[in-house]
Amino acid sequence: MNTKQIAEMLDGVLAGNPDTEIRRFAEIQHAAGDEITFISNPAYTKYFETTNAGAVIVSQNFKPPSKRQDITLIKVEDPYMCFVTMLEFFSKDSHPIEKGISDRCVIGKDAVIGKDVHIGDFTVIGKDCLVGDSSVIMDNVTIGDGVVIGKNSVVNSSVVIYHGCRIGDNVIIHSGTVIGSDGFGFARSKEGKYRKIPQTGIVVIEDDVEIGSNCCIDRATIGETKICRGAKLDNQIQIAHNVEIGEDTVIVSQAGIAGSTKIGKRCMIGGQAGIVGHLTICDDVIIGASVGVTKSIDKPGTYMGYRSKPFKDALKDEASVKEIPSIKERIKLIESIINKGK
Amino acid sequence: MNTKQIAEMLDGVLAGNPDTEIRRFAEIQHAAGDEITFISNPAYTKYFETTNAGAVIVSQNFKPPSKRQDITLIKVEDPYMCFVTMLEFFSKDSHPIEKGISDRCVIGKDAVIGKDVHIGDFTVIGKDCLVGDSSVIMDNVTIGDGVVIGKNSVVNSSVVIYHGCRIGDNVIIHSGTVIGSDGFGFARSKEGKYRKIPQTGIVVIEDDVEIGSNCCIDRATIGETKICRGAKLDNQIQIAHNVEIGEDTVIVSQAGIAGSTKIGKRCMIGGQAGIVGHLTICDDVIIGASVGVTKSIDKPGTYMGYRSKPFKDALKDEASVKEIPSIKERIKLIESIINKGK
Amino acid sequence: MNTKQIAEMLDGVLAGNPDTEIRRFAEIQHAAGDEITFISNPAYTKYFETTNAGAVIVSQNFKPPSKRQDITLIKVEDPYMCFVTMLEFFSKDSHPIEKGISDRCVIGKDAVIGKDVHIGDFTVIGKDCLVGDSSVIMDNVTIGDGVVIGKNSVVNSSVVIYHGCRIGDNVIIHSGTVIGSDGFGFARSKEGKYRKIPQTGIVVIEDDVEIGSNCCIDRATIGETKICRGAKLDNQIQIAHNVEIGEDTVIVSQAGIAGSTKIGKRCMIGGQAGIVGHLTICDDVIIGASVGVTKSIDKPGTYMGYRSKPFKDALKDEASVKEIPSIKERIKLIESIINKGK
Repeated sequence: MNTKQIAEMLDGVLAGNPDTEIRRFAEIQHAAGDEITFISNPAYTKYFETTNAGAVIVSQNFKPPSKRQDITLIKVEDPYMCFVTMLEFFSKDSHPIEKGISDRCVIGKDAVIGKDVHIGDFTVIGKDCLVGDSSVIMDNVTIGDGVVIGKNSVVNSSVVIYHGCRIGDNVIIHSGTVIGSDGFGFARSKEGKYRKIPQTGIVVIEDDVEIGSNCCIDRATIGETKICRGAKLDNQIQIAHNVEIGEDTVIVSQAGIAGSTKIGKRCMIGGQAGIVGHLTICDDVIIGASVGVTKSIDKPGTYMGYRSKPFKDALKDEASVKEIPSIKERIKLIESIINKGK
Repeated sequence: MNTKQIAEMLDGVLAGNPDTEIRRFAEIQHAAGDEITFISNPAYTKYFETTNAGAVIVSQNFKPPSKRQDITLIKVEDPYMCFVTMLEFFSKDSHPIEKGISDRCVIGKDAVIGKDVHIGDFTVIGKDCLVGDSSVIMDNVTIGDGVVIGKNSVVNSSVVIYHGCRIGDNVIIHSGTVIGSDGFGFARSKEGKYRKIPQTGIVVIEDDVEIGSNCCIDRATIGETKICRGAKLDNQIQIAHNVEIGEDTVIVSQAGIAGSTKIGKRCMIGGQAGIVGHLTICDDVIIGASVGVTKSIDKPGTYMGYRSKPFKDALKDEASVKEIPSIKERIKLIESIINKGK
Repeated sequence: MNTKQIAEMLDGVLAGNPDTEIRRFAEIQHAAGDEITFISNPAYTKYFETTNAGAVIVSQNFKPPSKRQDITLIKVEDPYMCFVTMLEFFSKDSHPIEKGISDRCVIGKDAVIGKDVHIGDFTVIGKDCLVGDSSVIMDNVTIGDGVVIGKNSVVNSSVVIYHGCRIGDNVIIHSGTVIGSDGFGFARSKEGKYRKIPQTGIVVIEDDVEIGSNCCIDRATIGETKICRGAKLDNQIQIAHNVEIGEDTVIVSQAGIAGSTKIGKRCMIGGQAGIVGHLTICDDVIIGASVGVTKSIDKPGTYMGYRSKPFKDALKDEASVKEIPSIKERIKLIESIINKGK
């Protein structure tokens, strides 16, 4: 594909050689003459002078820090989105899966497998399962009885989905993730012994959700634990029983959401954040990394610091602590003045 | 089962229709006429007026917020425990496992498998293992040589138990959990290179323990890492080498306990809490969520905040910080008075 | 092996019986007459009077707290390193693996398997893989197409390595760890919907690295996520896309490193620490447990507390907060004096 064709594909304006043949996408620092790269974050403009890339995608108002006659520019409205488009284009078919149902997998009684489905080696599909058309279930996966998986979804190796859970269309689940294991529920007797509360509900993962590796999403005590359409979860996230994660909400790795908490739409939960149980977080809330949330939030905005103070309060408290030594100095001075006056 | 029979089963007093047929347990907001629900937490009393439940389990002194002739009440001493009893009753046999030893599993030489055991597909049981009567080992599980598993225990899919570890009776281990991998031990040379310290011990899980998904319980360097009888661990918990968790202690998800720390009986460790190595935590200690514990604790009680201050101290420190701005105002006023007086 | 032979092996000086037969290494509290133990940390000297060990490895200047004619001392320069040597000696061959390639594994087309390799049951090796001589791949492992594994490495059960990743020589990877799953990258549209950014890179694990259980190391968006020679990672660690971990750096369990961050050589990252993305941490930095690092660090040293203050600053801030109540008392006194003077 040459630079002219790329400019057309991206709806961009070409400045330079329209005939440079481009074979790959690359980082600006490492790109070679048959590779294309991009500048979106101004911090990367400094690499413009030294890059060996054959072409660079830039914004319409990009000012080159130096003349580089040898580089072809493709000016576009949104270089970042065009970077994604290019990456998609060049990575398409880069790792094709030869689809088919392994003769070393086990498919339970009355399970229904759609068209064009892949089921890998040593994978177990339980009784009465449904797997929709074009879905891919990789190797060493365990899927319990009665699980429903939609169309065009990907379940990577070593995933476990317990019985009865429901997975939508276009869902991606990465390796080692466990969906539908028992929620953590015990009734404590007067003697301090624990009695297990049966976890009789399920997990529902709606369409277009992506879940990273080694996550845990527990089944509900009664009813459903629910990850709504379009939500994206990073690795090692803990979702407790009866939690609901709203549409298009993003959760960064190692965060944990305790039981029965409901999180709204389009929220962003930072890495290692913790949200206690039985809370309601409204739509469009941003929780900072490592923040502990102990109260419901009913106003959109950014919340930071221990116990999820609004961002400004967190900064103010931190600055306050820094002033204590100077406060002490001033008091000492006052005390000495008063003592002299006596 | 009708409401009269349920009242008898729960040792409760029936007020209303003794003949209502009940088929399921349900949440009060969603219950239908053939479903029973409960009110234990007063926050749920508000749903009493609108619930469609056929019967509601309530405490002996429950005062209905409104007359509902159509609802049958079952008055009991402890509605929460009765809720668990009902849930157990209705969930029993809801997901039976057809027991048997798969012909697609591998059982090592000299392994002894008890009566009425289930071993799933693609599961590997090592040499010289013992699996007690009525235990269930699901699919894609890997159990190393010489592992002992007691009676009536459940090892879910994709669990790995390394060689030599011992699991008791009535233990439940959820998917993705790894028991007995090497503790994190390296000796640092003067040049800053690391030499692995062999981890020669084992993990012992006593009776009645439940362990969630994707936990890690490391084998001891020498001796045993031990989870004592009745302890309950949530998901994604890290237990380092030579740790001991006391009887009936509960640990919430994503907490981590560093090497050689001993935790007493009936403790509760909050989610994402971290306890550093070589500490001793006495019986009946509650550690708040996300708390970092850096010193041994020898007094029962509740510990909160960064570095596990006792709860009251944590609240006091937090309140103190809030007062700094007003302290500054007062000093400024004093300084202006003194300056005027000069 | 008798005590005389051990003293020679450790290049130590024997004081006591040269003929005591030693069969095992043991902890000082539990050692028996045919077992050897060591004292390195003075906190364990108190056990000297009561231990039943046949021999104790001590430092050259060790002063016995009491006369124990029955105990043989072996005086050495570095008792801790000698403890490791002894543990290695006695644990060698304690758990031998009978090597071989299971007839229940799957090896993809054009994969090349070296000499003396072990491949366990229900393990899948993809197409075009290379597995170097003497490496051990345990059971239920899934290795994607084109993965390269060096010599003498160990991949434990239930590990997943996605396509194209490269693992060096003498690497140990513990169970449940996922290497090469997709980095967490999405482009947000103006409407708040997310579009997946293809993750086209790989993960490179260099020689002599050890990785604990249930870790996640994501593949790069473009290029490589890299764990450099000799680095040691504990359990449940999250390494995001395009991160680089320097040589001989140690990371304790449950820490998370966000995307594109570079960590230097010989660093120590505490448990549950979190490091945000796009930072550079220089060589020889120590980050305390649970610390959140939000800025690059360019000076070696120890960093503690929320937002990774240098250790001294963290202690100072903490002490400052404790002084607020006394500051308030002093101001109150001053105010009363001033008011009286009016």
